Amino acid sequence: MTTPQSWEARAEAATLYGFTDLPTIHARGTVVLTHGEGPYVVDVHGRRYLDANSGLWNMVAGFDHPGLTAAAQEAYARFPGYHAFFGRMSDQTVMLSEKLVEVSPFDRGRVFYTNSGSEANDTMVKMLWFLAGAEGKPQRRKILTRKNAYHGVTAVSASMTGKPYNEVFGLPLPGFLHLTCPHYWREGKPGESEAEFVARLAAELEEVIAREGADTIAGFFAEPVMGAGGVIPAPEGYFQAVQKVLKAHGIPLVSDEVICGFGRTGAVWGCESYDFVPDAIISSKCLTAGFFPMGAVILGPELADRVQAASEAIEEFPHGFTASGHPVGCAIALKAIDVILNEGLIDRVRELTPMFEAGMARIGEKANIGEVRGRGLMGALEAVADKASKTPFDGSLSVSERIANACTDEGLICRPLGQSIVLCPPFIVTEGQMAEMFEKLEGALDKVFAEVA
Amino acid sequence: MTTPQSWEARAEAATLYGFTDLPTIHARGTVVLTHGEGPYVVDVHGRRYLDANSGLWNMVAGFDHPGLTAAAQEAYARFPGYHAFFGRMSDQTVMLSEKLVEVSPFDRGRVFYTNSGSEANDTMVKMLWFLAGAEGKPQRRKILTRKNAYHGVTAVSASMTGKPYNEVFGLPLPGFLHLTCPHYWREGKPGESEAEFVARLAAELEEVIAREGADTIAGFFAEPVMGAGGVIPAPEGYFQAVQKVLKAHGIPLVSDEVICGFGRTGAVWGCESYDFVPDAIISSKCLTAGFFPMGAVILGPELADRVQAASEAIEEFPHGFTASGHPVGCAIALKAIDVILNEGLIDRVRELTPMFEAGMARIGEKANIGEVRGRGLMGALEAVADKASKTPFDGSLSVSERIANACTDEGLICRPLGQSIVLCPPFIVTEGQMAEMFEKLEGALDKVFAEVA
Repeated sequence: MTTPQSWEARAEAATLYGFTDLPTIHARGTVVLTHGEGPYVVDVHGRRYLDANSGLWNMVAGFDHPGLTAAAQEAYARFPGYHAFFGRMSDQTVMLSEKLVEVSPFDRGRVFYTNSGSEANDTMVKMLWFLAGAEGKPQRRKILTRKNAYHGVTAVSASMTGKPYNEVFGLPLPGFLHLTCPHYWREGKPGESEAEFVARLAAELEEVIAREGADTIAGFFAEPVMGAGGVIPAPEGYFQAVQKVLKAHGIPLVSDEVICGFGRTGAVWGCESYDFVPDAIISSKCLTAGFFPMGAVILGPELADRVQAASEAIEEFPHGFTASGHPVGCAIALKAIDVILNEGLIDRVRELTPMFEAGMARIGEKANIGEVRGRGLMGALEAVADKASKTPFDGSLSVSERIANACTDEGLICRPLGQSIVLCPPFIVTEGQMAEMFEKLEGALDKVFAEVA
Repeated sequence: MTTPQSWEARAEAATLYGFTDLPTIHARGTVVLTHGEGPYVVDVHGRRYLDANSGLWNMVAGFDHPGLTAAAQEAYARFPGYHAFFGRMSDQTVMLSEKLVEVSPFDRGRVFYTNSGSEANDTMVKMLWFLAGAEGKPQRRKILTRKNAYHGVTAVSASMTGKPYNEVFGLPLPGFLHLTCPHYWREGKPGESEAEFVARLAAELEEVIAREGADTIAGFFAEPVMGAGGVIPAPEGYFQAVQKVLKAHGIPLVSDEVICGFGRTGAVWGCESYDFVPDAIISSKCLTAGFFPMGAVILGPELADRVQAASEAIEEFPHGFTASGHPVGCAIALKAIDVILNEGLIDRVRELTPMFEAGMARIGEKANIGEVRGRGLMGALEAVADKASKTPFDGSLSVSERIANACTDEGLICRPLGQSIVLCPPFIVTEGQMAEMFEKLEGALDKVFAEVA
C-alpha cells in the first residue's frame, strides 16, 4: 500500500501530524481523502466512510451541502477577502454581528471575530486580563476550568484544557486552575447521589475561590457538554449551582459553545439545553458548518459595555487577527446559521435524538460497555473490562483505537477518546444511515471485545 | 451619515472593534465595504478606494483575481471541509505540504498547518517547549524577539510582539525578552556606522545569552523586514551577525515570514533577500493571497527530525486546530503560490520596485519626512517635526492618523503606524495606479503638514 509515490508515503514525507496516533499510521497508512457525499467521505482509493465524527464535530450539514457551497462560491465572486481593522469591514461582517447577537441568549451584546475556537478562548482571556488592568484590579488574572475540559491548543487555551498531555509542553502556564470534572459516573463517590455530587462540586468551587481570593480570579470557562473530554454532559443542576457561586463573587461565566453551539444538543446553544445564561459565549465549528475557519466571542451586555468602556478609555482595543471578520467566512456563517435554524437542521437533531439514544442504549447493554452518555446528537460509549467495578481495560490493549480501526475497516469513522468511542453524526443523516452507523459499530465492538475480554 | 439604520450605525452597534482608533470612528463613521475591483475596494455608498495596504499586507493579487476565485469555487464544489487529525487528511493538504517544502529554503522539512500567523508563532513556541521537555532541558523556555517586532495576538504571540500596547493585557508573559530594534536611523548612536550598530546588536545578543544562560533559551524569532513595527528592514549584515551568535549557542533562528513570505521583498522569502537560511519559517497572509485564513510552520530538516522524533517517542504530537489543513484553504494556497511564483506576480514586484522606490524618495525630500525606508513593495515614510534632529511631532497632533484620513477622503487607503505612513500595494497594481497612489498621498501630506508644521 505504501510505495514511495503512493498518497500514503507522500502524506508522511512532508507533514507533521497533529493529534494522530503515529504507530497506527505506520501500521495502517494515512487515509487521504478527495471529497465527500452527504455524511460520507471518500478516499483516493475510492473507499467510502460514513463519518460519524462530522469531520471534527463541525461538518453538520454534510460534505456537499449545495446551499452552503453556492453561498461560498457567490461570496468568492463578490468579495474574496478583507479584514476588520482601522474602522473598515465588509457588509457581511456587519450583518453577521447583528445575526449572532440576535440568535444569542443576550438581548444585546458585541461580537469579536477570530479564526478558531482556540483563538476565541485565547481572546476571551485577553479581554478579561484587559478588564482587570483597566478596572484597577491587575491581580485578577487566574482562569478556572475543569479537568478533562477542552478549550483549544494555543499556549493559553491549552493551559485552560484539562488534559494530561499538555504536560509535554510544560503547560498549563501558572494561574490556570482545573476543578473536578463533573462526570458523575466516574467522579461520584460510593453512595453519593447526583445532587450531592453537584453540591460537592459547588462547595469545591467556593473553597477554591476562598483559597485563591475572589479578586485574583478573572473568569470561569465551561463547555455545557464536555466534548473532547469524552462527551460528558453536566449533571442536573450543575450550572445553576456553579453560577450561583460565581455571581456571588462577581466572576464571569463563559460558556465554551465551540461544539455545543448551533444545534448539537438539540437547542441553538448548549447553555439553552442546561437552562443558564452565561456572561459570554465562545463559538466556532458549526458557526460555518465547517466550511470556513472562524471563531467568535459573543459578549453579553455587561461584559460588552465593560470591554467597550475600557477600549474607549485608551482609544482602541489593541487586538485582532488578519482574517477576523473575513467577508467570505461571514457570508458562509450567515448561510450556515440560516440552514441550521431555518432550513430544518436543528429540527432534524430533535427528530433523530430518540433513535440515536435508543441505539446507544442497546449497545450499552453489552458486558464491556460501562456507561452510555450524551445529549442530542453527541454521545459516548465507555468501554470497561468489568462493568460492575467500572474497571477500565489495560491501557496497553489500546481498546478504543482498535475499535476505531475496526470501524474504519468497515467504512465507518468514529473517534476513540480515552477508553470511549465518541459518536457525533452530521445533522443530515437519514434513519438508514444512522442504522448503518450502529450496525457497523456493533460489529466492530463484538470483534474487539471477543479479542480482549 | 450615521442614522440608526445606516451601515455605519449598524456596524458600531454589535461589533467590538479591534485595532481601530475609536475617536476616528465616532467622528467619521465606519467604512463598510461591499466588494473590490483589482487593487480597489468599494464601500456601501459606491466610493472607491485604492488600497495601498493590500487589505492587511495580504491581498497581493487584488480583490477579484479570476484564477483564485475559480480555484476557491472549484474547491468548494469538490470538498468543502475536513481536518488533518487521526491520520486522515485531504489530498490537497498532502500536495500543499510537498509544495511548501519544495519552495522553502530547505532541501527537506515538515509542515504544520494553522489558521493564522498568530497561531503559527504560538505553535512554533509550543514545538520548542515540547523539544525542551523531550530532550531533557525543561528549563529551555525563554523566547527572544526584538522591540517593535510583531508576531501576533494570542497571549503568547502578543508576548513575542515588542509593542508597548500589550501592557494593557498584562503582557508579555514572563520569559519573553525583547532586544533592541534593529532600526539604524532611530537606534544608531551619534557617529556610529551601520556596521558598528550591527556589531553592537550582536554583542547585546551575546550578553543576553550569557546573562540568561544559553540553556534557558528556546529560540529567537525575527521578521526579515519588521512589518507592523513600521517597515524596518534589517541593516546590512544583521542576520549574519545574529545567526553566528545563535549557532554558537545552539539556539534556533525562526524567520517570521508572515508579511515577507511569497514575494513582498522581491524574493520568495524575506530570508532569501537577506541571504540567510533559518531553522524554521512561519508563513501566512500571502500564502493564500488573503483568500483564506491559513498559517503554516515550515520546519527545516534539523527541527523537523527533532520534533518528529519527540512525537514518535510519545506516539503523537498532541496539538492541532480543527481547520488545520482545510482542503479549500490548501487548494487556494496551491493556486496562490502558482499565481505568485509562476504567473508573474513576483516578477511584477521586481519590475515595480524601482518606480516605488523613486516615488518614495521624491516624497522623502519633503521637510517633514525624516526617513524613507523599505524593501521591495513595502515602504514607510516617517513624519518628523524637525528633520535634522529627527524630532517627532507632538503625539497629540495625531499626524499619521490625520494623513491617513486625508488619504481616505481622496480615495486612498494607507496605514498610519506610529508617526509613519506605511505603503504595501498589491503586486498587481499598474504603473498608472502607483502614480495615483503617490499623487494622492502627496496631496494629503501637503495638506496635513501645512496644518501642523
